[in-house]
Formats: sequence, C-alpha cells, structure tokens
Amino acid sequence: MKKDLLGIRELSAEDIQHVLDTASGFKGVLERDIKKVPTLRGKTMVNLFFEPSTRTRMSFELAGKRLSMDVANVSVPSSSVVKGESLLDTIRTMEAYGADIVVIRHASSGVPHLLSGSVAASIVNAGDGFNEHPTQALLDLFTIRQHKGRLEGLTVAIVGDVAHSRVAKSNVYAMGKLGMTIRLIGPPTLIPSGVESLPGVEVYHTMEEGLPGADVVMQLRIQKERQEGGFFPSIHEYADLYILNSRRLAMARPDAIVMHPGPLNRGVEISSDVADGERSVILDQVQNGVAVRMAVLYLLAGGWVSSGTSGQQEELASSA
Amino acid sequence: MKKDLLGIRELSAEDIQHVLDTASGFKGVLERDIKKVPTLRGKTMVNLFFEPSTRTRMSFELAGKRLSMDVANVSVPSSSVVKGESLLDTIRTMEAYGADIVVIRHASSGVPHLLSGSVAASIVNAGDGFNEHPTQALLDLFTIRQHKGRLEGLTVAIVGDVAHSRVAKSNVYAMGKLGMTIRLIGPPTLIPSGVESLPGVEVYHTMEEGLPGADVVMQLRIQKERQEGGFFPSIHEYADLYILNSRRLAMARPDAIVMHPGPLNRGVEISSDVADGERSVILDQVQNGVAVRMAVLYLLAGGWVSSGTSGQQEELASSA
Amino acid sequence: MKKDLLGIRELSAEDIQHVLDTASGFKGVLERDIKKVPTLRGKTMVNLFFEPSTRTRMSFELAGKRLSMDVANVSVPSSSVVKGESLLDTIRTMEAYGADIVVIRHASSGVPHLLSGSVAASIVNAGDGFNEHPTQALLDLFTIRQHKGRLEGLTVAIVGDVAHSRVAKSNVYAMGKLGMTIRLIGPPTLIPSGVESLPGVEVYHTMEEGLPGADVVMQLRIQKERQEGGFFPSIHEYADLYILNSRRLAMARPDAIVMHPGPLNRGVEISSDVADGERSVILDQVQNGVAVRMAVLYLLAGGWVSSGTSGQQEELASSA
Repeated sequence: MKKDLLGIRELSAEDIQHVLDTASGFKGVLERDIKKVPTLRGKTMVNLFFEPSTRTRMSFELAGKRLSMDVANVSVPSSSVVKGESLLDTIRTMEAYGADIVVIRHASSGVPHLLSGSVAASIVNAGDGFNEHPTQALLDLFTIRQHKGRLEGLTVAIVGDVAHSRVAKSNVYAMGKLGMTIRLIGPPTLIPSGVESLPGVEVYHTMEEGLPGADVVMQLRIQKERQEGGFFPSIHEYADLYILNSRRLAMARPDAIVMHPGPLNRGVEISSDVADGERSVILDQVQNGVAVRMAVLYLLAGGWVSSGTSGQQEELASSA
Repeated sequence: MKKDLLGIRELSAEDIQHVLDTASGFKGVLERDIKKVPTLRGKTMVNLFFEPSTRTRMSFELAGKRLSMDVANVSVPSSSVVKGESLLDTIRTMEAYGADIVVIRHASSGVPHLLSGSVAASIVNAGDGFNEHPTQALLDLFTIRQHKGRLEGLTVAIVGDVAHSRVAKSNVYAMGKLGMTIRLIGPPTLIPSGVESLPGVEVYHTMEEGLPGADVVMQLRIQKERQEGGFFPSIHEYADLYILNSRRLAMARPDAIVMHPGPLNRGVEISSDVADGERSVILDQVQNGVAVRMAVLYLLAGGWVSSGTSGQQEELASSA
Repeated sequence: MKKDLLGIRELSAEDIQHVLDTASGFKGVLERDIKKVPTLRGKTMVNLFFEPSTRTRMSFELAGKRLSMDVANVSVPSSSVVKGESLLDTIRTMEAYGADIVVIRHASSGVPHLLSGSVAASIVNAGDGFNEHPTQALLDLFTIRQHKGRLEGLTVAIVGDVAHSRVAKSNVYAMGKLGMTIRLIGPPTLIPSGVESLPGVEVYHTMEEGLPGADVVMQLRIQKERQEGGFFPSIHEYADLYILNSRRLAMARPDAIVMHPGPLNRGVEISSDVADGERSVILDQVQNGVAVRMAVLYLLAGGWVSSGTSGQQEELASSA
C-alpha cells in the first residue's frame, strides 16, 4: 500500500497497470450524462502550485470535484509562502486544515519527496523541477493503450527537449518498466548524457533516423526560454530540424499516433495539419487525464493496494 | 435549439421572452431558504476570463453552483494562454476536460463567435470587446419587466459612453426586437454613427432633450481611461453634462426607474442620492443577474427549445 | 441574537463559551471519515479579501465547504475594487448575489463594523488593520481549553509586536472577559501605551520577567517590515531578546504549552526545537481553526442565540 504518488520511478509495472485499469472505470463515469460519483465525498484535496499552471491544476480540480471531493486551490502569488514560511510548515498546515491529498507542483526537483515523510496526507507530484510529472506519463500510457490495445513491445519516439522535460522523464521510466522501446530524438544539448543506459532507451539526433518504425510519436513542448540558455541557436532552426509535419510523420509506421502534452507551439514543434489530423490523439490525452487523475486520487484516498483487487472498478462505476 | 449564447443579435423576441420566463422560476428558487437545486448536477462550467472581472465571474459562478454544477475558474494571469497557446487550442482543451458550458470574456470582439463552431460545448459570451454582453441585457430586461410589468412600448434612455459599451449594444439589440424605444444620450464622440437607423433607436446629445417621457433611465459606467483617448475633455465636464442627479431624474416620467450595470462611479455618472434612492433598481439588477444566468445555463445544458415549453418552470422550481 | 462577528470586544463571556462549545461538536465532525455535514446546504459564503491571505482564507473556505455551503473567493487584485467602486457598493453587491455570510479582511481598522449596518448579510471580521482578528482568538482559546481543560485562572504570555497585532488584541479582549491573566511581553515601542489598564493585563519588557508561572506562551509573528519603521533595531537583536527557545521555555510552568498564529519565522520569534517540540500546539491551532470557523458560520447562519441552547451540538453532530 502506497501513501503518495511521487514519481513513476517508485512504481512497479503492476502498479502502473493497476492505475490504468482503475482509470478505465472512471472513463466510463466521464462518458455518462452525470459525470460525477460520490466516492470521495467528505475528503479534501488541496492544489498547492508553486509554479503557474492552468491545465494540470484544472485537470486535478475537476478530477477531485467529480469524485465529490472538497477542493481548494493555492497558488504562489497569493500564498503565505511569500511571507517566508518553510515548505515543511506549509505542507503541515495544509494537513492540519484536513487535506487528505495535497497535489503539489514546484520548480525544484525532489520537493514532493522531501515533504512526503513529514505528513500523513497523501502527496501527488504534479511536476517537480526537471524531474518527474508522473500523472502525465500515466495518461499518456492510458491513451496509447486505448489506441493500440497494448503497451508491451511498442516503439515510442519522444522528440525535443528531453533534458528539461519532466514529461519525458516520467515516460522514459514508465515505458522502460512496461517493455516498450523509447527513442529519444533531439539535439545533443537537449538529451541527458547517459540516458541510453536506461531500459529500452535509444538515442537519435535526427527525425529521419529515429522515426522509422515508431508506433507513437510524442512531440515535447519547446520552452522558448531555453534558446536564451544557448541550448539551440534559434526557434526557426529548431523547427526546421524537429518539427513534426506530415512529411515526417510519413516516416513512422502508417498507423502511428501523434501525442503532445500541450500547450502546443504550432509551427514550432508540430505543424497544424498534424496536430489537427486524424492520427493526432492530443485531445484524448487531455480527456484521459481527468480519468487517470480520478484513479490516482481514488487509489490514494482508498488505500493503494498493489495487486489489482477484483470488483473494485465495478463498484466505483456503479456508485453514482 | 441553440447551442450557444453569443449575443442578443442572434436571438428572436421569442427566445428572449423564453429566457425571461425561465428566469422567473429560478428567481423563486433564490428566494427560498435553501437556494439551490440539483438540476445540473454532474455538469461542468468553466469561467474562462481573459479580462479581469469580479462581478460577472461571480454571478456566473454562483448561478452554476446553485444549479449544482461543478465550476472551475480560469483567469488570464495564471493561464497557459501566456504560454502562447492559441484560443482554439484553449477552448478545445476546456472541452476535453469535460466542460459542458464555457463562459468566456475576451477583450476582442467576436472571440466567442469564432470559437463556437469548433467545440460541441456551449459557449456563453460574458463580454467580447466593444461588441456584446448578452446576459447583462437579459438581466436588465428582466428587471424592467419586474418593475413595469411589461416591456413593449416602454421608452428607455441609455446615457453615456454608448460607443464603447457592450452593455448598451446588447440592450439596443434586445429592446429593438421587443418593440421598445431606445434613446441613446451622450456626446457625439461617444455615440456610434449610424446607430439611429437601428429599430427603435433615437439619438440625443443632452439629458434635457432625451429624458422627458422615459420610463427607464440607464446610466452607463464611464471608463476614465477614455478621457486619455480624447473622447471627452475631463471627468468633471462629463459629469456636469451627463450625471443623473435628482434634478435631472425629475425630467423623466414620475415613475421612471434608474439602472446601472455597475460598478458605480458615484458623483461621475450618477449622484449618490439617485443611486441609493427609492427609484433605483440597481441592486435588483445584480440579484436578477444570478436568476437570469441560471436560466441561460439551464436552457443551454438542457437544450434550448425556441418555443416556451409548458411545465418547464414548474418542474425546475420543484426539483429542489 | 447577533448578526455579525465583528470583534471579540462585542462578545460576552457567555457568547465566547457558546462558540467554543459549538466548535467541540464540529471538531467531532472533522475527525470522522466523511468530514462533512449538510447543515448549511444552499447557503452562500463569500470570502472578500482586500489583503493577501492563504491561511485564513483557506480555513474559512474549508469550514464553509464542510458545512456544504457554496463558497466564492474574491481577492483584491482581480476585484472590481480596483475600478474604484466604494466598499459599501461592493458589500451590497455581494449581498445581492445572495451571500448569506461575507468574510472580510481589510487593511483598515473598522471596515467590517462600517459595513455591518448596511447589509442584512452576516459579516465576519477575518482581520481589520491593527484592530481585531476574532476567529483567531476563538481558536486560540479553544486550543488552550483542549490542552488545559479550563480557561479561567490561567496565565498567558503573549510575546512580540503587540501593537501591530490584531491576534494579540482579540486575545487580550477575550482573555480579560474570561478571567485569565495576560502578560504582554515586548519592547516598549511594540506595546500599546495604556494597555495595562485593561482587565487582566500585565506588561513586561523581558522574557525573563514575564515567563515565570505562564501556562501558555504565545509568540507573535514579527513583521520584518516593522524594522524599517524603526520599531526595533534589527531582526537579529529582536531575536536575541524575544525568541522562544528551549532555555526560555524552561522559565514558564513545566506544563506550559507553546502557541503561534503562523506563519512561523523560525529562528526569529521561535526556535525550531520549540516549534516542533512536544509542548507546541501550533498545528492544533490550525486544525481547531476549521472547527471554530464552522461554529461561527453555523451560529451566524442559524441565528446566534446568546445563551447556549441545549441539544444543538448533538443535532449538528448527527446531521451527516
């Protein structure tokens, strides 16, 4: 039984499958007319965001509300953190308010892990520095499984700024555990050195080398701020080399799907015809994110049992 | 059946009456001890505000909550819009989160119309540039009908910066459709040229000419920023000419009511004795706004039927 | 029957005891698995904060949600207050939206009192200038009673910037009414002159004089901004004289408890070993704050009856 979701690194292949299976039940709830269940009524979730975020915050907020949780949002600018309170005091205060689950995003790697041992409340990592963003990887896997029917044996190309991407890192850990092949594609300055020694990982520096045979092409968002850091010469040149357009997509498998964690830089890492094309599953990712986060909240609040418990999804799907 | 509420321009007189009739039922709900109905439980509303707003956002938020909707707020400063995402991607993302209704305010005219065709979710225009603010006109009409018992044949004076007012524009469209006379009063620089060709519209440049015979005097809020634009010489001079004080109110009909969309600039467009006087219905406007927005959300979520369906209000009023 | 909670000054000893007794019932609710009761379903609370606050805002928000209220937050930066609306218009607008209770924090003393007479909605003072913060004093008393079993006859040392502390002022008023002894400890520049004439108050300028015999040591948060005002020479010197560390805590009674309203300046007004030590009840204060605020909301919404009504707590505790 686990208390927190700190990263994919801490999970087993079985844990991951268990979240995905649980999320399937909640996806059914979201397709109903009344997309809400009373499952976690009387439980409290706090979104504690030290970095601005609309998308992840909203996805968690709606996941909580659809489980009938009480949800409170705290973002840095209006937070007492500016008064110099320590992170540990902040998290303990949240727990004293009665938070059962604290969803935390922070610009520094490892903050969720640091805080985890100090409170009985569950901590969910919603992105820590350049480290992990585990629920993003879980929703990516859920979306791949939805479209491919399986995960093991698939080849996924992840293209772009892998070095600064917590999305990429969580996916690399997850896909390695699940017997998938991960092709990291990007300029050498944006691929962490030594990453090729991780299970399933291959490194390529051009789309032409990395895309052939890929079942999934996942484009990462390029942070324009990185250009100032000297990681690549210009957005224009980056786009020339690494944009996913229809010509390049044709190099992957004919049934390859296209993914992106959003928000999109159209014309930079992805062309509009590909983003809006029939092989794009980008909006499925957004939609599945709510179901996956409902599963995570549900498992943490109910007590995460490592082996899948039979009957559990039936129960939650019929509890409306 | 309509999917969106983009503007009054798109509505028929029957549509408007249908919203007002539906709102009457919800006004009854708001007068109960428990001012809440389960009508839209499990439905989600997102307030997507690209301009700061407390009043309109809160009115929609409370309307949604009193219908038992799940409500999430997104405002620009904390939004991923700053990351350069396109409007279209933003609205599609909101829909993918499961938003049934997106309430949108934007500084550019036509944004709600632009987005409407791209999502199945309902779009409600909460103010777009200098164009429309349809729910404000609906609540204004509801308030007039409450106090006058009818709409057709009434004369309404709208005073101030008509050119930059979406409130005025939505009211001009609505009142024209309903057989009302609209007297627009303001300096020539603040009255759109050609507006007198619209149904029911008359233009005046002084209160002395425009107020006699008016059943309703609606003062618009003056934006002090307009002074810098050179639209009028000074706030002081503007107030001299267009403030509604008790002396000027006496020029209208003896039973004329006083309206203002808020927030008030006391001493600029309205004197305090008039704002707080017995003929002021300004706080009724605020109160009715919640009932009218509940009606709009209800009609959009349930499927807007153009002709009034009998029994509908009874049903919603008894569903607590 | 009282409409508002403006300050402790306006309460009798019986009123205070009645809040504390009611809060005991709600503390029981918070210890359940489903920490929520339907008591105030259909009632609306607005958090109207003109000063940034995470802690107090969240505590009220969660208190309201656990009573099943609809809660809306308004904070200054996004508020129409910036448009120059008067405070009176703002509060009347909140009432017109259907707010049953408005929780207000403002940088100016007396704002809640000023607004109270103008609306039928209940006003709760969540901190006004250098005046009062009544719910903080109530939660402090609740926490003391929890640990000491009684209030009358106890000696409480309040240490620090009493002059600028609304927490201290509310506690001084409350403890005086309840027959407690209050020792105010701080440099002469930070103790209001004449305060020693209030019931139960003694003034000391050193910890060495003030702590012996204290049952409770309450450290106030030092505002670093005060240093610029010349109230004390430096943070370092202040800490030297007034920090509560284990050596100084040993001067109080052996069973003395340690309190702080938060957020903590560790190493300035309190040492980490004391803040985290077994005699610290700081997190109990946070936790009790939710129960005490639930009691305040409940009493105001239900009609505050001055004498304790028998059976009331039983009723609320069993209404889940």
